[in-house]
Amino acid sequence: MQLLKEKILSEGRVVGEEILKVDSFLNHQLDVELLQAIGQEFHRRFGHKKITKILTIEASGIGIAAIAATYFKVPVVFAKKVQSRNLDKETFKTQVYSFTKQTNYDVQVSKRYMNSSDQILILDDFLANGRAALGLIDLVEQAGASVAGVGIVIEKSFQEGGQLLREKNIHLESLAVVNRFVNGQVTFLG
Amino acid sequence: MQLLKEKILSEGRVVGEEILKVDSFLNHQLDVELLQAIGQEFHRRFGHKKITKILTIEASGIGIAAIAATYFKVPVVFAKKVQSRNLDKETFKTQVYSFTKQTNYDVQVSKRYMNSSDQILILDDFLANGRAALGLIDLVEQAGASVAGVGIVIEKSFQEGGQLLREKNIHLESLAVVNRFVNGQVTFLG
Repeated sequence: MQLLKEKILSEGRVVGEEILKVDSFLNHQLDVELLQAIGQEFHRRFGHKKITKILTIEASGIGIAAIAATYFKVPVVFAKKVQSRNLDKETFKTQVYSFTKQTNYDVQVSKRYMNSSDQILILDDFLANGRAALGLIDLVEQAGASVAGVGIVIEKSFQEGGQLLREKNIHLESLAVVNRFVNGQVTFLG
Repeated sequence: MQLLKEKILSEGRVVGEEILKVDSFLNHQLDVELLQAIGQEFHRRFGHKKITKILTIEASGIGIAAIAATYFKVPVVFAKKVQSRNLDKETFKTQVYSFTKQTNYDVQVSKRYMNSSDQILILDDFLANGRAALGLIDLVEQAGASVAGVGIVIEKSFQEGGQLLREKNIHLESLAVVNRFVNGQVTFLG
């Protein structure tokens, strides 16, 4: 997706060898016009499937999923990361390891909002080690629902997430695939 | 806002005397069509102001703010609740007490994304004790920016947040104002 790649090149900031900061447009400040183009692109790639719901994970997936959902015309469910007093007792639950925060955390979705008739599209901002995506897939499977696909804004090709999902025969679409960062420069694989 | 009130009456669940659960359409699962109507209504009420940016707080504010921003055609910034390795060191920071979680937490916005030329519209799902809204106002003031207004989806009239904001002469617009819950029934003030 050309518009996204140009945005990454002009505003992305590489930190060290593995971190790409895109908080000016994707996960702290949101460029809403870009998110609309991203939502349309996801719809172009997955719109032929009978998606009944979009699943993402708080917090940075929510803006992406909400705007994409305006093109799919389906509800969004966002998985919650922390036990909250207001969350239903009856949840699908899985554990995800965060390399960024170097800790395990619980991820939950109320059983009210996914069931065996659902065709779920999973959307998220980044695919790196794949732990969040695999956790979300686990939740969908616990519900007996189907994973219609996984849509990712930025995949890091040098981490294992993409490979892990493709090995599971998941329909994965990444709008930008970044290669290892050399001298602070981003290059793209696809 | 009639559509919102009907949704609260048909899907909201009252728990005890103070909690209204709206997680089937507003803060776990998102009814995206309703969020579009909410965004249009916020634009009808605040669109005459020269809003440059929408500020909200993770996580449940993000979907509301992102979809509303498609009508205002401005970026969204969402304040972050936890110290994250990926967040800029240079932040505006304030402390907010959560009655739901019964703990204080830090709320931060990178200094890159608000400055003294900004006219900020603050959006959030609930206004109860007003702590989150006052925290966001504090962040805007630290940036030297102006608070153009505060837009709330559901205000609880029996908690002090609305009064606190009106005393500060903030332009507050709440799309539904709920009254104390009697026998599990919601009634509206406005």
